Amino acid sequence: MTLESSMGTYSKILLAVDLTIESSQVASRACLLDADELHIIHVIEPLSLAYGGDIPMDLSTVQDQIHDQAKTHLQEFSRSLDVPAERQHLVFGRPEAEVHRIAEEICADLIVVGSHGRHGLSLLLGSTANGVLHGAICDVLAVRVGIIDDENNT
Amino acid sequence: MTLESSMGTYSKILLAVDLTIESSQVASRACLLDADELHIIHVIEPLSLAYGGDIPMDLSTVQDQIHDQAKTHLQEFSRSLDVPAERQHLVFGRPEAEVHRIAEEICADLIVVGSHGRHGLSLLLGSTANGVLHGAICDVLAVRVGIIDDENNT
Repeated sequence: MTLESSMGTYSKILLAVDLTIESSQVASRACLLDADELHIIHVIEPLSLAYGGDIPMDLSTVQDQIHDQAKTHLQEFSRSLDVPAERQHLVFGRPEAEVHRIAEEICADLIVVGSHGRHGLSLLLGSTANGVLHGAICDVLAVRVGIIDDENNT
Repeated sequence: MTLESSMGTYSKILLAVDLTIESSQVASRACLLDADELHIIHVIEPLSLAYGGDIPMDLSTVQDQIHDQAKTHLQEFSRSLDVPAERQHLVFGRPEAEVHRIAEEICADLIVVGSHGRHGLSLLLGSTANGVLHGAICDVLAVRVGIIDDENNT
């Protein structure tokens, strides 16, 4: 990506979703930007990363179930946005690292990601957006989600 | 701002600039989003904050000069984007806090800010974008700047 190309409109957007109900809100924003190509990524954090060690056999079965469920949800979500299979990316790993990797692989010029608010648990949830912003080689749009919940919690 | 309004297009954008040469690149992105109202903010960090104490009289004169120079630059920059005086915000304080304050005051639905890369000094410079993202009550677009410099530094 050159300085020059970044002056134009966005042509290839990578939409990072956690496949919760808020993903539709984030997707709406991405769609409004009217890129030539919309890609969608969902990152499954391996249980071994989440729990910091090797996982026993029964957890590995759980992980297969998580993968299958995520695959189905990603397909349904992508279908609702008319995003074909070759632009759906279901990957394992650390969210920020995988979003950056796929963004570079497809030469995205914008990453769109949901961002939570400043209160309580949302501080933790919001960290993915910060992680994605840090180290991205392209623009990043953080779409604020969960606003109503946050206001109720203040 | 309600969940519903955040589903539409951006109507009021707050563009945060440091008035360096890269600000034009960030502004180009903001203009492409074609909001009804574009506001521009430039935050001057008081020397007392930067140096952690009271400032002597001669530094206070320096600060006046910084303010006058910033005012002129902000006016010129805003004129080039057809942004009238009432939508130009020149404020003193911590960049993140002031950007959030003005964004809330004008009910912005998007903050656009420049974001530096991952290498060397740019790590420090990039912290403003992260700071703005954290705690913003609206969407934040971080526009990647300084790409050519970063590539030369790797």
